[in-house]
Amino acid sequence: MKTAPVVADILLPQGFAFSSTTAGIKVSGSPDFALVEAFQGAAAAAMFTTNRVMAAPLIVDRDHLKRSRGRMRALVVNSGNANCATGKHGIDGCQAVCRAVADELVCDPEEVFPSSTGVIGVPFPAEKLINAVPTLVSARRAEPDAARHFARAIMTTDTRMKIAASRFKRGKSEVTLFGVCKGAGMIHPRLATMLVYLFSDVEATPAELQPMLAEAVRVSFNRVNIDGDTSTNDTVLLLASGESGVKLSTVAAQFAPALAGVCQALAKQIVSDGEGVRHVVNLHIEGARDDAEASQVAKAISNSALVKTAWAGSDPNWGRILAAVGYSGAAVDPSKVDIFFGRHQVCGKGMAAPFNEAEVHTYLSQPVFDVRVRLGRGKVSGTFWTCDLTAEYVRINADYRT
Amino acid sequence: MKTAPVVADILLPQGFAFSSTTAGIKVSGSPDFALVEAFQGAAAAAMFTTNRVMAAPLIVDRDHLKRSRGRMRALVVNSGNANCATGKHGIDGCQAVCRAVADELVCDPEEVFPSSTGVIGVPFPAEKLINAVPTLVSARRAEPDAARHFARAIMTTDTRMKIAASRFKRGKSEVTLFGVCKGAGMIHPRLATMLVYLFSDVEATPAELQPMLAEAVRVSFNRVNIDGDTSTNDTVLLLASGESGVKLSTVAAQFAPALAGVCQALAKQIVSDGEGVRHVVNLHIEGARDDAEASQVAKAISNSALVKTAWAGSDPNWGRILAAVGYSGAAVDPSKVDIFFGRHQVCGKGMAAPFNEAEVHTYLSQPVFDVRVRLGRGKVSGTFWTCDLTAEYVRINADYRT
Repeated sequence: MKTAPVVADILLPQGFAFSSTTAGIKVSGSPDFALVEAFQGAAAAAMFTTNRVMAAPLIVDRDHLKRSRGRMRALVVNSGNANCATGKHGIDGCQAVCRAVADELVCDPEEVFPSSTGVIGVPFPAEKLINAVPTLVSARRAEPDAARHFARAIMTTDTRMKIAASRFKRGKSEVTLFGVCKGAGMIHPRLATMLVYLFSDVEATPAELQPMLAEAVRVSFNRVNIDGDTSTNDTVLLLASGESGVKLSTVAAQFAPALAGVCQALAKQIVSDGEGVRHVVNLHIEGARDDAEASQVAKAISNSALVKTAWAGSDPNWGRILAAVGYSGAAVDPSKVDIFFGRHQVCGKGMAAPFNEAEVHTYLSQPVFDVRVRLGRGKVSGTFWTCDLTAEYVRINADYRT
Repeated sequence: MKTAPVVADILLPQGFAFSSTTAGIKVSGSPDFALVEAFQGAAAAAMFTTNRVMAAPLIVDRDHLKRSRGRMRALVVNSGNANCATGKHGIDGCQAVCRAVADELVCDPEEVFPSSTGVIGVPFPAEKLINAVPTLVSARRAEPDAARHFARAIMTTDTRMKIAASRFKRGKSEVTLFGVCKGAGMIHPRLATMLVYLFSDVEATPAELQPMLAEAVRVSFNRVNIDGDTSTNDTVLLLASGESGVKLSTVAAQFAPALAGVCQALAKQIVSDGEGVRHVVNLHIEGARDDAEASQVAKAISNSALVKTAWAGSDPNWGRILAAVGYSGAAVDPSKVDIFFGRHQVCGKGMAAPFNEAEVHTYLSQPVFDVRVRLGRGKVSGTFWTCDLTAEYVRINADYRT
């Protein structure tokens, strides 16, 4: 069986309509309010930030998923205000927006899934959104252009929209998966949220979707590290309309890799669109005892300011990587560690390996490069995606008020 | 009983002589080799990096402390080469230097405590050091100027020497404690090591000194976070010559706060001397359940690139601090968290508190300011020292080769 290719394009699954408008939250006047309707409803699976500070929409989402037993009719997203650290007023405002959308679509409010991204701690302007709901709902279309405008309306300081899709056949039927996201980190002050929405016409129950989503997130978004901060609003939502007439259980072997592939494509788009990012790094951890150990080492390396600033300067400074492995908490024997930049080995058994400085500097000057760390502990490997830390990043995140 | 004041000056304890010379490791030609002799030997306590990648001198130190049962005759330090990731050759070279020093001083090699700071992964130039040992040893003097030159010779890219001292009376006798250190982080590529040496003429056993040192380090160096990286060479050494004739057991209530005070003074000097640092932050965590929880929250805040870049811009961005508290791993209820910048409350019960932006921006424009986070969990408080993350830091750490 062939794995379906992932494309950076819009392929629309059946059963979904998209819309966007300007509610007036963003000072720029750009679109800031967006909707996806599943005409016949959809089975939903979702994952949220692990941050204990959780924005109002996430609290409402959890409640709605529980009360609707994982059936959703609409997704509604605003950009420009995170509705976080806003207390009861924020919850009330979020619920009022859901009610307004439900009234227009003639469904239950708990079938509406709200999302917000933007500034933390600013009162949530529910009225502006409620006033814009009729326009938003009436503009919905099951067309690629509408999906494109949706992808743009959820952007904050992203410089480009982020989309990925995959499609495969099952007999005479066809299953489509379309993903869109915004974010994250390293972008704009207080607007570090990652929002990911995945739409498919496969037929599935929420209980079937949830473990499949968890696995796809594990090998994609959970392997991205930009600046080590975890947003208060991070959300990944998967909706399955069932309109293809193809049951997930009959195509799980095709759907799972398509889902992982779309998630990985979106994850890489997020890393490469970080403002201030000059180098995207494919970080391969090899010879780990298990997945947790590979993650632990990757996290220490990709959280290290010293490692990331060296990458910004295309500096083959493997000593900082070795030091990060050493303090990662993994029970690594340093004298068994090998480090490679692309095909160039720079550290062997924990000591300097002879290499051509100029050649490796040139290799590390590319916009995307590979770093490989062999731990010599076991047989588990994993690839993670991270980036450099540049002076531009600091400027963007420090100087926005002054 | 009054706590003895801590001064940023040289007060020499009895029983120690200092020396420094140029062995030719540093390209600049600056002094790079330094010695302290305890004429009659000294009881020693030491703490080392928790990094699993441990430099050769630290491996030798542990062995020497064990074999000498904690009695040291000399401390010998080189700057310019970390002797880390240098394999067996590095261990052999380190031991050869100790033997050369022991030969000159007529003592056992295991009574010599070696330290190195500098570049990782470059072969250790033992011969250069061995050739300089006779000059180094013959230049030793029990004089403030010799101690001052010692403090300078162990510097790498520190911009100023770091010293602190305290002295108190016991009857007709006097106990002196003198500390000197170099480092750390946020300074120069690969030269992020913190080395701390504490000298006293109190009379004590190694077993008495060790827990007292551990407690002083806990409330000082372990509460400093510059860039979250842990060096491979970090070392804290306390030597007690006994020459004052005053037993530690009789002055523990005076010695313990003097030791903590000297360590805190040195820790603050380290933070404020980081290149690229524009703001030193006194981070007060209050209302924690226990010490571990206070540390966990302080670590998340002071590791956050988003928090530290906001501080660089004097931006009263409390949302990033609240988010860091949320992902710290502590079981905090966000709706009980208060945040203050100096006397200005900016967040109350997890929500925005009204404050004057211009006033708070001015407050955060000072070179040193206070951030206070109340967790509402318990009664434990702790103060930590950290700093901002500036574009200058990135430049220093990224561009040194290009």
